Amino acid sequence: MMDLLEVLHLDELSHGLAKLSMFPYFDMAHYIMSVLALREQPGALEVSRVSPFACWFSSMLFCFGGAVLSGIMLAEPPVAPLSNSTSVLLASIIWYLVFYCPMDLVYSSITFLPLRLVLSGMKEVTRTWKVLSGVTQAHSKYKDSLLVMIAIGWTRGAGGGLIRNFEQLVRGVWKPETNELLKMSYPTKITLIGAVLFALQQTHYLPLQTRHLMLIYTIFTVVNKSRMMLTGSSSSPFAAIESAIYRTLFAGYSPYAALTGEATKACADVSASVATKESSKNRAADAPSPSPVMGQTLKAKEESERPEPESCKKMD
Amino acid sequence: MMDLLEVLHLDELSHGLAKLSMFPYFDMAHYIMSVLALREQPGALEVSRVSPFACWFSSMLFCFGGAVLSGIMLAEPPVAPLSNSTSVLLASIIWYLVFYCPMDLVYSSITFLPLRLVLSGMKEVTRTWKVLSGVTQAHSKYKDSLLVMIAIGWTRGAGGGLIRNFEQLVRGVWKPETNELLKMSYPTKITLIGAVLFALQQTHYLPLQTRHLMLIYTIFTVVNKSRMMLTGSSSSPFAAIESAIYRTLFAGYSPYAALTGEATKACADVSASVATKESSKNRAADAPSPSPVMGQTLKAKEESERPEPESCKKMD
Amino acid sequence: MMDLLEVLHLDELSHGLAKLSMFPYFDMAHYIMSVLALREQPGALEVSRVSPFACWFSSMLFCFGGAVLSGIMLAEPPVAPLSNSTSVLLASIIWYLVFYCPMDLVYSSITFLPLRLVLSGMKEVTRTWKVLSGVTQAHSKYKDSLLVMIAIGWTRGAGGGLIRNFEQLVRGVWKPETNELLKMSYPTKITLIGAVLFALQQTHYLPLQTRHLMLIYTIFTVVNKSRMMLTGSSSSPFAAIESAIYRTLFAGYSPYAALTGEATKACADVSASVATKESSKNRAADAPSPSPVMGQTLKAKEESERPEPESCKKMD
Repeated sequence: MMDLLEVLHLDELSHGLAKLSMFPYFDMAHYIMSVLALREQPGALEVSRVSPFACWFSSMLFCFGGAVLSGIMLAEPPVAPLSNSTSVLLASIIWYLVFYCPMDLVYSSITFLPLRLVLSGMKEVTRTWKVLSGVTQAHSKYKDSLLVMIAIGWTRGAGGGLIRNFEQLVRGVWKPETNELLKMSYPTKITLIGAVLFALQQTHYLPLQTRHLMLIYTIFTVVNKSRMMLTGSSSSPFAAIESAIYRTLFAGYSPYAALTGEATKACADVSASVATKESSKNRAADAPSPSPVMGQTLKAKEESERPEPESCKKMD
Repeated sequence: MMDLLEVLHLDELSHGLAKLSMFPYFDMAHYIMSVLALREQPGALEVSRVSPFACWFSSMLFCFGGAVLSGIMLAEPPVAPLSNSTSVLLASIIWYLVFYCPMDLVYSSITFLPLRLVLSGMKEVTRTWKVLSGVTQAHSKYKDSLLVMIAIGWTRGAGGGLIRNFEQLVRGVWKPETNELLKMSYPTKITLIGAVLFALQQTHYLPLQTRHLMLIYTIFTVVNKSRMMLTGSSSSPFAAIESAIYRTLFAGYSPYAALTGEATKACADVSASVATKESSKNRAADAPSPSPVMGQTLKAKEESERPEPESCKKMD
Repeated sequence: MMDLLEVLHLDELSHGLAKLSMFPYFDMAHYIMSVLALREQPGALEVSRVSPFACWFSSMLFCFGGAVLSGIMLAEPPVAPLSNSTSVLLASIIWYLVFYCPMDLVYSSITFLPLRLVLSGMKEVTRTWKVLSGVTQAHSKYKDSLLVMIAIGWTRGAGGGLIRNFEQLVRGVWKPETNELLKMSYPTKITLIGAVLFALQQTHYLPLQTRHLMLIYTIFTVVNKSRMMLTGSSSSPFAAIESAIYRTLFAGYSPYAALTGEATKACADVSASVATKESSKNRAADAPSPSPVMGQTLKAKEESERPEPESCKKMD
């Protein structure tokens, strides 16, 4: 392993990566993409006009949700992220510019495909740092509990998604019928995998150095995210593995077999077409938004990064 | 008191009981009955097919809800129950077997009346230990605060019920119109009474030894639960006391007296008949489930262990 | 500044005020007005008949919501307020008298205008103490973080309002479409302003002595509250400033300008008339309640202390 890495000069690269500071550029990219994700939620623009405060609070939950949620889970003050004034100030400025910039210049710029691609890539890099910090923090508190390490690493990295229901409540939106546990989005899945890998690495079950795993995981997430944005493909890279695991473990017995057997199969098959339909739906729903068509399509694709189509649940 | 106990050889029995280890058999019974309760929730089977992860998370909340909730209330990490790997592994295996066992063998077995009776009894025994551990933990933190001791003992023992709303949210179900505070179920009530008794005992207001109270409380809960399961009676043993307290304290004045006076009386009177109707409703709603009829009936009875009928609220 | 205060003998007054003990009279006024606010929520009386326990729990959240919420935010036990037995006992007695007193004597008395006026004034005084205690507590934990100080001071002072959604859930009511962040009520706004002022004072950005700021803030809140109750005016004293800030900062760009430009303007203009309509609505809805007409009108006014009318949101 080490030999291969050295041949490819990747060992030096991993040294460089591990020393990379997230502040301020990568953090900024994370804040920009988080606030952008909020702005592209249905109804968010209206909330930004009616109640700037609720909009700001929602933005902070998008930006610092992981820190807040993992704080609660470790019984540390959820208010702590607010004490880092510089980060909050930075995120607040970005929030203001994305939502209220005259002529909507900032939003128009960051939805410009190449810039959005770079910012998305940088945001993915911050994920590695967040997952690792969560895992090591849990490791220092609960020595050998893999599960706690995975849970904290996961919530630190994907907290914004996991508290989505309550973030929406701040904006007056309540969608109890769906959440990230019931139907994981791509970012939540990739973060969970990262948390598992880093937890195994920290407990020495995975014989890799931290910085090598950081490099591998970062490259995987950035490449995969870029591929998804460029090709507009909504297929998860884990769809095949997920499907295999599901068929092996969870399809053993079903009292609904007679009713849902074909439905479930049909669901799996129509996955792609439903995802496409969802994209069109998103595009239609967001029509009043004045972003360029390119950004629109990209967003729709990002939104639809879910392998299981909505209808599967309904059919059951 | 001591004499009476000695005559009946109950003192030795209480010694034995106090030394009884909950792990692994009683804990297993608790996990089995908890996961079974989840499986018998409407819609839970569908969730288990669509999202095994959400189903697993819900099961863990049923099994460890008390520890999680009392942890939050004492500002201790709610993630702590996850650090007990053995318990989580045991509960996860039981979750898997109850939901996904080939031929549904496990579910069919545990819904077989005599086994279900034994498991229910064992689960009731774990209640005593949980309430006591909650009360003593609160006692060590808040010396003489009866209320805190009761609150923590109660949430430790009945936490799964108290966080029901949020456990349902994990499965995409949201029923804000009801909760365990608004309409207490039998387990929640019996746990509250246990918490009050143990809190009084720990602060020496109740002149009993801990192990004697453990014995009395355990016998009461086990006998009462078995009686309810065998006779299918949904009448709470406290219905008379509750009614008396209600009439004395809370019926003094009502601006709705003219409207609801008779309605309330009617409610109290039709309690039994409504409970019976509910049982039939449950039986009908769960019809697709392939459990033996005996188990079905039992479950319906367990579900309807509520003295106040639904309609009372609506009539008001 | 000091000279002016001395001339007006206000310095001595501020000394006296700072030494004033909240317990028991001012605390009692706070409990009475909090329980009264709960009783005047639609549906609360029904809950008090159906489930006295849920009603009591809701009352405690109204009375101690600020302490519970700021406790959670600082990772301190949210159960801590229960450990102060005297306060809980006092609040429980008041809860009982307000809801279940024979002949409804207590409710009739406290809704008698002059008494209600005095109690409201005293409740406003407790706000100063709560905000200050929150700010100083945060100051001792997070040295120079203005934001944390503001957040804790605000939640301590206005916690009952901020957890309204979850307090309603206890009573089986769920209104996700509105919350105190989306549409701040007058008490929430005045508490936020107080938290900002005390945080600036504690960090010496505001060159005032603590007791002088206490005096000024207390006088302002009491006078303003009394004015609002007496004149029935629902206009916030900050409406002009808010409007100016909004127009300057948050109206820069709107993709909905063509659609909502006039609507927003119209909203601002019809604010008063809508508030009036709301008052009538409240009056009608609460008609079965047997309080004297004077109290009714006052309550309706208190309820409608919101500058932005409901319809603004809907129009957008």
